[in-house]
Amino acid sequence: MARVVVDVMLKPEILDPQGQAVQRALPRLGFEGIEGVRQGKRFELEVAEPVTDEALARIHELAGTFLANTVIENYTVRVEEGAAA
Amino acid sequence: MARVVVDVMLKPEILDPQGQAVQRALPRLGFEGIEGVRQGKRFELEVAEPVTDEALARIHELAGTFLANTVIENYTVRVEEGAAA
Repeated sequence: MARVVVDVMLKPEILDPQGQAVQRALPRLGFEGIEGVRQGKRFELEVAEPVTDEALARIHELAGTFLANTVIENYTVRVEEGAAA
Repeated sequence: MARVVVDVMLKPEILDPQGQAVQRALPRLGFEGIEGVRQGKRFELEVAEPVTDEALARIHELAGTFLANTVIENYTVRVEEGAAA
C-alpha cells in the first residue's frame, strides 16, 4: 500500500483569514518571530500496488477537479516514500 | 525567509468522517483504486532568518499546544527546503 499526499493551499494572492487568525494569536500566546501563516488541507490517499504513472495522472485529475478548487487553490501531488500502511 | 511546514493529521485510531466522505464520493466520480483517504491540515509558517534549533523547538511547542489537539491528532514539523517567499 503506497501513500500519495495531496496538499491543497490557497493561492498566494488569495486572502487566508484562517491563517491570519492563527498568526494574530501567536504573539498573545508567547510565540514571536513568525511572519506569516497560511493554512491549507492535506489529503493522504492509500493506493494499492506500486503507484504507476497512470495512477498518478488520475490522482492529479482527482486533485484538480475534486479536492482543490483551482480558481483559488493550488495543489501538489507526491508519493510519500517509506509510508507503508 | 524560511518556510516551516506543520502537518496535522488525526491519529490513525480516530475516525475521520471528512476523509471517509471523500473516499465514498470517489467511485461515484469515476476514481477507482483508492483504498483510504484521511484529511488533515497543513500550516505553512514563514520564519525569518536561518531556522535555528531553538526556533524549531518553539515551533514544535506551538504545534503541540496550539495547532494540533494532541489528544486526537499527530503533527509533524519540517523545514521546507528551497522555499523562498
